[in-house]
Amino acid sequence: MSIRSLADIRAQLATLPALDQAAIAAAEARNGQLTKPPGALGRLETVAIWMGGWQGTDKPRAARPQIAIFAGNHGVTARGVSAFPAEVTVQMVANFAHGGAAINQLARTFGAKLDVHALDLDRPTADFTEAPAMTEDEVAAAFAKGMAAVDPEADLFVAGEMGIGNTTVAAAIAAALYGGSGWAGRGTGVDDAGLARKEAAIAAGLARHKDALSDPLQVLRCLGGREIAAMAGAILGARLARVPVILDGFIATAAAAVLDRAAPGALDHCIAGHVSAEGAHARLLDKLGKEPLLSLGLRLGEGSGAALAIGVVQGAVACHSGMATFAEAGVAAG
Amino acid sequence: MSIRSLADIRAQLATLPALDQAAIAAAEARNGQLTKPPGALGRLETVAIWMGGWQGTDKPRAARPQIAIFAGNHGVTARGVSAFPAEVTVQMVANFAHGGAAINQLARTFGAKLDVHALDLDRPTADFTEAPAMTEDEVAAAFAKGMAAVDPEADLFVAGEMGIGNTTVAAAIAAALYGGSGWAGRGTGVDDAGLARKEAAIAAGLARHKDALSDPLQVLRCLGGREIAAMAGAILGARLARVPVILDGFIATAAAAVLDRAAPGALDHCIAGHVSAEGAHARLLDKLGKEPLLSLGLRLGEGSGAALAIGVVQGAVACHSGMATFAEAGVAAG
Repeated sequence: MSIRSLADIRAQLATLPALDQAAIAAAEARNGQLTKPPGALGRLETVAIWMGGWQGTDKPRAARPQIAIFAGNHGVTARGVSAFPAEVTVQMVANFAHGGAAINQLARTFGAKLDVHALDLDRPTADFTEAPAMTEDEVAAAFAKGMAAVDPEADLFVAGEMGIGNTTVAAAIAAALYGGSGWAGRGTGVDDAGLARKEAAIAAGLARHKDALSDPLQVLRCLGGREIAAMAGAILGARLARVPVILDGFIATAAAAVLDRAAPGALDHCIAGHVSAEGAHARLLDKLGKEPLLSLGLRLGEGSGAALAIGVVQGAVACHSGMATFAEAGVAAG
Repeated sequence: MSIRSLADIRAQLATLPALDQAAIAAAEARNGQLTKPPGALGRLETVAIWMGGWQGTDKPRAARPQIAIFAGNHGVTARGVSAFPAEVTVQMVANFAHGGAAINQLARTFGAKLDVHALDLDRPTADFTEAPAMTEDEVAAAFAKGMAAVDPEADLFVAGEMGIGNTTVAAAIAAALYGGSGWAGRGTGVDDAGLARKEAAIAAGLARHKDALSDPLQVLRCLGGREIAAMAGAILGARLARVPVILDGFIATAAAAVLDRAAPGALDHCIAGHVSAEGAHARLLDKLGKEPLLSLGLRLGEGSGAALAIGVVQGAVACHSGMATFAEAGVAAG
């Protein structure tokens, strides 16, 4: 169906495909026969079995990963919330196009297809301290672009982002979804005064839109951004296509959290690729019950942490799907 | 030089090449110009700069990784220290040769060359509770095989192992090098009685050889095994060829620790690939001052955890060596 409204998104969230329990059982049985002591591959085993469950097979694959980056601009940058000027969003999109960014190198390293979607960069969202960031038409359009961005032939999906100001946006979303304070962090590197401006902007946004924020999709509309709506759409699109997802950092996880709050279980097809150095990311993953695969102090965005985790998932499925069984190899099973 | 004695090993350890400080400075300068906020790639940045320092370039590579697995058998298995029979060592070597083991899949995933060296499997070391595990000739021969196993054209090296009983051997080495108790763990999965037998064997070995254990190379000879001596030799061989090394799990790290105790700084060209689920591995890494790249609960050996970390290192050097600078990309530097 096409997405034209928040009601359309809600309708999609009501019809989520479930994990294939027969494939899980078959993958678990296979795992128990492989030439290694039980459990000796640790988390690689659970990752591979989970991949099998979403791909509907006891021999999952990760040979066709897809990375989709969504870029958006944010009216809240007028509040002085970033260390970089808003022009950097469009400059970095050009850098993606020319292959010069970190994500280009990581995509090539792990054989991932990389698509970049620049979303109305010349038309920033409204400053959420003054008005809803997006109209319903705008948020639905961005969400739909994200849904359509998923290649149903991919066997693994990463949503990444670029958008000067968007750690402020993600922190506002997290605060609205979960309450509490301290969701703002240093982002690309603001000083103490910049951090104080982020906190003030978030408080102002929460106050202005307080009557709407009990609805996670209204949180996305009032406080979000196009790239964040698109990431949420892409994560839902991947679910509908039964493509497993690796979540990236704080901003991608905030986008995912909107879905989780709107429909519990909506992120069952997602694994946390890493925990970033952006302070509140660990707290957000904890809210989602997701244990990160990597913890390497990244805080770049672009899908970079999740892209790095593609290698771990490829290693996991390679072992699971390629190893010999004890019987095949003539090895004593202990 | 050829290695025929412990004195020959000592002579090599006295002439270790140092990090290229000019290359480090050049790599740091390059890192500061890449299109990302300062420090946003976290540990990937320090890994890439370190790789540059050993490769002597500001644009390091990890396109030709090499994994060498060494297999050995251990007389101490007579003490009932393993959940698997000793025959599994030779069976698993056959599994490596046929491509059926976990390490085969991981080597293929990350494009690594994989070499397997079976070291006199029909001639186990002596039971170290009764006699020195090896003669000086035997330990020197195994060490020399490890040194010769390193391909000087490799740009990254992993030493892995297979040897039923060798978590007991590694724990005995760690106890001899660092003192204290509790170095024994569950290995491939021994029960409480098996763990008690491991602890008893280690205590007996330490008592029998106590007069020799102030010398790390005598620790290797009296308590070690051929695959462990070979890993130590390979790690030293990589240093002499200026090839950076990713350390694997508890057993590989115990082999490395012998070098560190014999010549402080001998592991400056080594990074810890992962921390394994074998209880004392974290403690051993702490003794070496090494922070692991991955923590995924692996406890397989074969070089598997380090092999998985090859992907992380490849991602790190791909970003560092492939990204555009701010000037090249026309991006505002904040």
